[in-house]
Amino acid sequence: MRLGGMHEACGVAGAVTPGRQAARPVFFGLFALQHRGQEAAGIASSDGRAAYIHKGLGRVAQVFDEDNLRPLAGELAIGHNRYSTTGATQLRNAQPHLVETVLGPLAVAHNGNLTNARALRRELLEAGIGFSSGSDTEVILRLLALPAEGSEDPWIARIGRLMARAEGAYALVLLTREAIYALRDPWGFRPLVVGELEGGGWAAASESSALATMGARPAFEVEPGSVVRIDREGYRVHEVAAGRPRALCVFEYVYFARPDTVLAGREVHAVRRRLGAELAREAPADADVVVGVPDSATAHALGYAEAAGLPFAEGLIKNRYIGRTFIEPDDALRKTGVRLKYTPLASVLADRRVVLVDDSIVRGNTAGPLVRLLREAGAREVHLRVASPPVRHPCFMGLDMATHDELIAHRLELEAIRAHVGADSLAYLSHAGMLRAVGTRTGLCDACFSGRYPLAVEPAAPEEDALVGEG
Amino acid sequence: MRLGGMHEACGVAGAVTPGRQAARPVFFGLFALQHRGQEAAGIASSDGRAAYIHKGLGRVAQVFDEDNLRPLAGELAIGHNRYSTTGATQLRNAQPHLVETVLGPLAVAHNGNLTNARALRRELLEAGIGFSSGSDTEVILRLLALPAEGSEDPWIARIGRLMARAEGAYALVLLTREAIYALRDPWGFRPLVVGELEGGGWAAASESSALATMGARPAFEVEPGSVVRIDREGYRVHEVAAGRPRALCVFEYVYFARPDTVLAGREVHAVRRRLGAELAREAPADADVVVGVPDSATAHALGYAEAAGLPFAEGLIKNRYIGRTFIEPDDALRKTGVRLKYTPLASVLADRRVVLVDDSIVRGNTAGPLVRLLREAGAREVHLRVASPPVRHPCFMGLDMATHDELIAHRLELEAIRAHVGADSLAYLSHAGMLRAVGTRTGLCDACFSGRYPLAVEPAAPEEDALVGEG
Amino acid sequence: MRLGGMHEACGVAGAVTPGRQAARPVFFGLFALQHRGQEAAGIASSDGRAAYIHKGLGRVAQVFDEDNLRPLAGELAIGHNRYSTTGATQLRNAQPHLVETVLGPLAVAHNGNLTNARALRRELLEAGIGFSSGSDTEVILRLLALPAEGSEDPWIARIGRLMARAEGAYALVLLTREAIYALRDPWGFRPLVVGELEGGGWAAASESSALATMGARPAFEVEPGSVVRIDREGYRVHEVAAGRPRALCVFEYVYFARPDTVLAGREVHAVRRRLGAELAREAPADADVVVGVPDSATAHALGYAEAAGLPFAEGLIKNRYIGRTFIEPDDALRKTGVRLKYTPLASVLADRRVVLVDDSIVRGNTAGPLVRLLREAGAREVHLRVASPPVRHPCFMGLDMATHDELIAHRLELEAIRAHVGADSLAYLSHAGMLRAVGTRTGLCDACFSGRYPLAVEPAAPEEDALVGEG
Amino acid sequence: MRLGGMHEACGVAGAVTPGRQAARPVFFGLFALQHRGQEAAGIASSDGRAAYIHKGLGRVAQVFDEDNLRPLAGELAIGHNRYSTTGATQLRNAQPHLVETVLGPLAVAHNGNLTNARALRRELLEAGIGFSSGSDTEVILRLLALPAEGSEDPWIARIGRLMARAEGAYALVLLTREAIYALRDPWGFRPLVVGELEGGGWAAASESSALATMGARPAFEVEPGSVVRIDREGYRVHEVAAGRPRALCVFEYVYFARPDTVLAGREVHAVRRRLGAELAREAPADADVVVGVPDSATAHALGYAEAAGLPFAEGLIKNRYIGRTFIEPDDALRKTGVRLKYTPLASVLADRRVVLVDDSIVRGNTAGPLVRLLREAGAREVHLRVASPPVRHPCFMGLDMATHDELIAHRLELEAIRAHVGADSLAYLSHAGMLRAVGTRTGLCDACFSGRYPLAVEPAAPEEDALVGEG
Repeated sequence: MRLGGMHEACGVAGAVTPGRQAARPVFFGLFALQHRGQEAAGIASSDGRAAYIHKGLGRVAQVFDEDNLRPLAGELAIGHNRYSTTGATQLRNAQPHLVETVLGPLAVAHNGNLTNARALRRELLEAGIGFSSGSDTEVILRLLALPAEGSEDPWIARIGRLMARAEGAYALVLLTREAIYALRDPWGFRPLVVGELEGGGWAAASESSALATMGARPAFEVEPGSVVRIDREGYRVHEVAAGRPRALCVFEYVYFARPDTVLAGREVHAVRRRLGAELAREAPADADVVVGVPDSATAHALGYAEAAGLPFAEGLIKNRYIGRTFIEPDDALRKTGVRLKYTPLASVLADRRVVLVDDSIVRGNTAGPLVRLLREAGAREVHLRVASPPVRHPCFMGLDMATHDELIAHRLELEAIRAHVGADSLAYLSHAGMLRAVGTRTGLCDACFSGRYPLAVEPAAPEEDALVGEG
Repeated sequence: MRLGGMHEACGVAGAVTPGRQAARPVFFGLFALQHRGQEAAGIASSDGRAAYIHKGLGRVAQVFDEDNLRPLAGELAIGHNRYSTTGATQLRNAQPHLVETVLGPLAVAHNGNLTNARALRRELLEAGIGFSSGSDTEVILRLLALPAEGSEDPWIARIGRLMARAEGAYALVLLTREAIYALRDPWGFRPLVVGELEGGGWAAASESSALATMGARPAFEVEPGSVVRIDREGYRVHEVAAGRPRALCVFEYVYFARPDTVLAGREVHAVRRRLGAELAREAPADADVVVGVPDSATAHALGYAEAAGLPFAEGLIKNRYIGRTFIEPDDALRKTGVRLKYTPLASVLADRRVVLVDDSIVRGNTAGPLVRLLREAGAREVHLRVASPPVRHPCFMGLDMATHDELIAHRLELEAIRAHVGADSLAYLSHAGMLRAVGTRTGLCDACFSGRYPLAVEPAAPEEDALVGEG
Repeated sequence: MRLGGMHEACGVAGAVTPGRQAARPVFFGLFALQHRGQEAAGIASSDGRAAYIHKGLGRVAQVFDEDNLRPLAGELAIGHNRYSTTGATQLRNAQPHLVETVLGPLAVAHNGNLTNARALRRELLEAGIGFSSGSDTEVILRLLALPAEGSEDPWIARIGRLMARAEGAYALVLLTREAIYALRDPWGFRPLVVGELEGGGWAAASESSALATMGARPAFEVEPGSVVRIDREGYRVHEVAAGRPRALCVFEYVYFARPDTVLAGREVHAVRRRLGAELAREAPADADVVVGVPDSATAHALGYAEAAGLPFAEGLIKNRYIGRTFIEPDDALRKTGVRLKYTPLASVLADRRVVLVDDSIVRGNTAGPLVRLLREAGAREVHLRVASPPVRHPCFMGLDMATHDELIAHRLELEAIRAHVGADSLAYLSHAGMLRAVGTRTGLCDACFSGRYPLAVEPAAPEEDALVGEG
Repeated sequence: MRLGGMHEACGVAGAVTPGRQAARPVFFGLFALQHRGQEAAGIASSDGRAAYIHKGLGRVAQVFDEDNLRPLAGELAIGHNRYSTTGATQLRNAQPHLVETVLGPLAVAHNGNLTNARALRRELLEAGIGFSSGSDTEVILRLLALPAEGSEDPWIARIGRLMARAEGAYALVLLTREAIYALRDPWGFRPLVVGELEGGGWAAASESSALATMGARPAFEVEPGSVVRIDREGYRVHEVAAGRPRALCVFEYVYFARPDTVLAGREVHAVRRRLGAELAREAPADADVVVGVPDSATAHALGYAEAAGLPFAEGLIKNRYIGRTFIEPDDALRKTGVRLKYTPLASVLADRRVVLVDDSIVRGNTAGPLVRLLREAGAREVHLRVASPPVRHPCFMGLDMATHDELIAHRLELEAIRAHVGADSLAYLSHAGMLRAVGTRTGLCDACFSGRYPLAVEPAAPEEDALVGEG
């Protein structure tokens, strides 16, 4: 299931590489984190004198070539993949954000969402500080630029103030003249790990799976509320903010992270198979074959099939080359609809009773057409099984999935959803089943399922960015 | 398994759409045929007065937008996806090729390879005809431009002469002022089908699966040696060349075509599962789990697992966003190698005896690193199973897979290949097993496996294109 | 006076440079010939094995950079600047045109216009030769590609046939594998000169002034009807076509060529001053100051002022940075009109009686606004003097200036033109005066003034190019 | 004479246009001010709700098209042309600079140079304000964003503080949500005028000549130290800073401004003719003809010729299409040198004694090659006359012409300069003669000639911009 390009679960990476160019492993880290954001990519670096930056719209392999990567000099670098958000795609929103401060360059790459960004922004505006964008990342940047006292390292003091003032989700990598800093908010909403580079030096990345691509071995997860300062000599951990109840986003397990990533000690793929297996136990179906929505729900479907003792099959083929096309179908073509993205396999489906497993349902736009596709290919029955509970509440911590009204499970009861998507039966995994599959009952943020937000959120309209245009 | 960007199995499409723009369904057809060629794309159209064309490098969604699609006016259109070949990627090689002739515009989109292109080209050059490229498609174009006698429709007469003179593989769609023509060489090496458009009119495409995306229902396959002329009134079939023994490329079943395509009445996905099942019967393995090389060998692996009574699992994750990156890893990064493209899942592989199923092995560059990846993730044993026979002979009919010396099965014996890739055991499907899985013993070209070419080929060096540059 | 982007007086250049890259001096030659065409530029080269080409839309400095010039290898090169013509600007019309022939590569760069292009094109089409464009340059190219007999050098034989068949204006440089050829039609409508390169080798260019920029000393003009073959050993002149009465375009003197060019032994700037002086003698004015339309009529105005004993002044300033802007003025701005291009100087014009000298009037669109500008700046009287006779007849030899109906002097009598442009008086130079200023009564084509065309022309509509689009 | 791309005399424009789009007349104003800066162009606009911006590298006609101009909505707009400076050309330095403040959007377009930018920047950095560039324009922007008290209009209060703190040259147009502001520093170094738009509303521009192109009639010059606030209702003048001795840059008369501009009541072209006439009286030459360096010194040469009773002639032709070419000549071509830009006319120069008039000499790189060109074309004697005094001192007010050591008149005495350029004689206009020609002895900044700076300047190295890269 795709969230429809609405969430902001970006990817961040950073590296300090004594004796070689840091931007290069950061590029490969962004490459491995491409699934976390495809709208824009950027890298900032420092050679101890100047800071260098290149950003662009599109995937990381489109944004970077040797000609623009080579000038990103120095042994320190950070990078960012940006997810598509609502509104116009603009270069000005690409990260890292970079400014010159009295302490030298400062660049910020941010994964998450501040819930009090609006109030902080207003406070800074009133202090006479001008903003170049409407993003909460710039709020973080401007706050970090302000002088602070109370630590040997002035950046640690500023990060301390940030953690005292900012609320919500922020996994950050910062670049300064002398060091990079990797830090997570006190709740630990978004993941962030540190690894040791085989060629010497240290790296940070949103997911452990990216470390291998950067040439690093996983070392440890950045603890919520703590900061890892990395320079040419090594790293040092600062515990900056008091511990809050941990709240790692459970949706990273369900859908967002790469299957080969390990979060809090658990391999994501294995969790997904267990989600499917729990679902099979809770909601069996009298069927002939189990089909997953490719590619995100294949693991869940395999787990379901195994636990249910049913054969797993590829019943839907996903177009590997799908991408943004701006060509509008005419009326005669419009009915092809979802077939641009998925095609059903008659040999698998014809005359079968099919269990269709999806990882989650958010808006409910995709499930209906998929059920129809299966029926057109001859499926006799379609039993839709969803390997997570109903999504009834919006996310304010960086998975900007939808507003209340857009969430189908907020608007409709189970039977109405079943009728809407046209399935013969429909079942979601229970909340308890999800937690059993993950393997923990604590330390997770499951607000989108439960409505229990780990911190107070004011669901106010975001402040409008009044600046429009490139440059 | 990937052929490494060396073959030329392009995709072609065409449409005649009374009352609406033909280029639009052709765009969607090319979109569905993207797997057949990603180097370049192009569409030519005719409104009965003038011909219009737009071509560009890259995938079809990159080449086309509303601004360049809209001017492709008229109720007739053809299009082409080009596969990456050796040498520089040049716009001049993008298709369709278009010229003005005494009968009006002529555009050609070609899938295949002429084996006597060199001799035909020389003959035309000696007649004083200048060439703009070194491609065999231009040989076809120039030959079709020459006057011919002997038919009511002058284009049919010219196509007749083409079929009398040209040898090798050619599935073509032609655009003229009044009609489009879809035709296959007398052997039928490459597929080509015709469908009826739901909005009225007719379409042609390399694969049946593309017809749905064009908004058409499959009608019939173009017979080898015959031409289908389509105009605003409907279609008419001309049997132009005497029947030769049919020789549909078996590799389309093994790897090349989309799984949801039906070739000669057989769904490709179903054939692939049977290939896996035959392989399981011929070459069982004492193992715990079956893993396919994603995405092309998943069906084969599912068939193997089912027949072997072993669990199928996702043991390798493929980076969905892989694409051409021109960034060079430095020495420290170079060891990451294949991990950019695939990552192994420890939870599936650790301490297991694994059957790794691939669809085919051509050069043998990928299998070794994959076996190593599995072992690094903890696999105790790796048994490589290949769901087709050893590829020992080059293709001269458009799958320009490699030269003799590049084919690992031409150079090495089975045991040497096993040692080279580092597997605990290695087995290929037998030739007979492959034919059983496909379901026919006749009508196929299996020269790359058997060395039995359906027509005499002179493996001469291709004539050098002496023209270099854009424009 | 500007002809409004309608004529096709392109620029051509070529060089053979033993021991160094020929494309480089050709680039600088095109740079010096930029005034002859700004729509597109291109260079083709040969290193004796392959031919290389790069073309693009825009000025030569926009089209070329080191990255695309460097690959144009070899000691032989030719180039072309294209003038803006009616209709869409398309890359496909950029020159040189290049094809592979049985004798190796052939590239053509053409300045001029064939008057029988339509008949020749039809003949070639009927022979089965396909065309990629609607240009007469491709007619030349296709004709040259056909085998011919009767000379030691097969290209000389083909050029001989071209000269026998083609009618109209063509100054050409051709590139083959072994040599370049510079040739002029038997009338010599368009200029073409040869020079000796200081670094060794020989160069050809449309105008002598370009030779200096190419690093060459002028050697001789290419004689009408003759061909200069240049290879690494030197040059050889072939007299191929019988002499026709010479007909060098007189408009090259009046407006088109660079002032520092020498045509048939006469410096263009000096001729222009004499045109102004003759005009002063024929059409004096009771005035205070002489102003020329910058920049093309400054020399004429200086000649007028000197002969008339009146002070010359800069009364109109031309915007040096004018270029193609696609921004539409709104209604309030539309009245600024010609002020984007010219501004009047009040200190020069206020309360003065002004002689405004222009080199020629073709359509009459510019003169009226200029006269109004002068009056707005305070000029008491404006006496328009035109340093050439009325243009009453279209050009069919490559200065595609306008159709009959667009020529103001074809439609209106002198007094009506004066009233139309709003001048206090108006006078053209007489035909005899023009010839006196040029210094010859023979050897010129003055058909646009006199209607006496040196060869029969059929003013038929040009054949429509039925191919539209890039690539 | 060209200053070699070193100075920063940019152009600014602004408009308030009730009922129509303001960005359109601003575009045409920038077009008319193109001579003041060709490196980059940009426009920012406001519709009372949001601010819109588009900037790009290159000339204004290259940066803007209908697609990017149309979205610049609203009745308020400002624009900027940027001059090429040392160092890399970067989009980040393009203006206007735009930020969101607590009072809404603020955009700044700046012509000039602050002499205390470094100290102000450090003060702001220490206050915790981050900078996105190293430009003094951002210093102005950040200073204006800080809250200030003491006026009804908070922007007037902020501008008052700016004028109290900033030293040096600044002619600014500011854009806010409700109004645009046009202001000049208390010395009035750089010009700025206001005009009334014919379609209603008011416009501001660096030079009066641009007003006509914007569709406006000149109304008044912005007084030094005052601010003109323009909104939909009309304009209001605020005298904000106490009067300082006026110091309009005399180089605007000598070279920089357009000839049709009126500065402090004097038409620039007329001043230039008087500069030439004064020079003729001070430094006559026994010669046959007077030639100016085109195009900038043509007026000076005409004035010289008239006063000296010698004929004026076009002896040098300037390539109108010169532009940035990045093609390197090879050794054989390198000797063509200045001929890319100028060509001499033998008919004017051969065997003549020539007076060559230039407007000024800064570095002395161009004069020598020009003198050689004249001699190569046959000039018997070359007498170089410079229509301004020797430039011995650098400019700190925005004409960043050169450092001390680069100024040839700082390094060498008159006779040594003459020998360096190879002229038969050399004379500069005297300081008194220049003032006579301008027509005033007060109110000018002539520091580059006299060394008398109107305010204390610290010739310190500019602070390095430590941020490199786009985006």
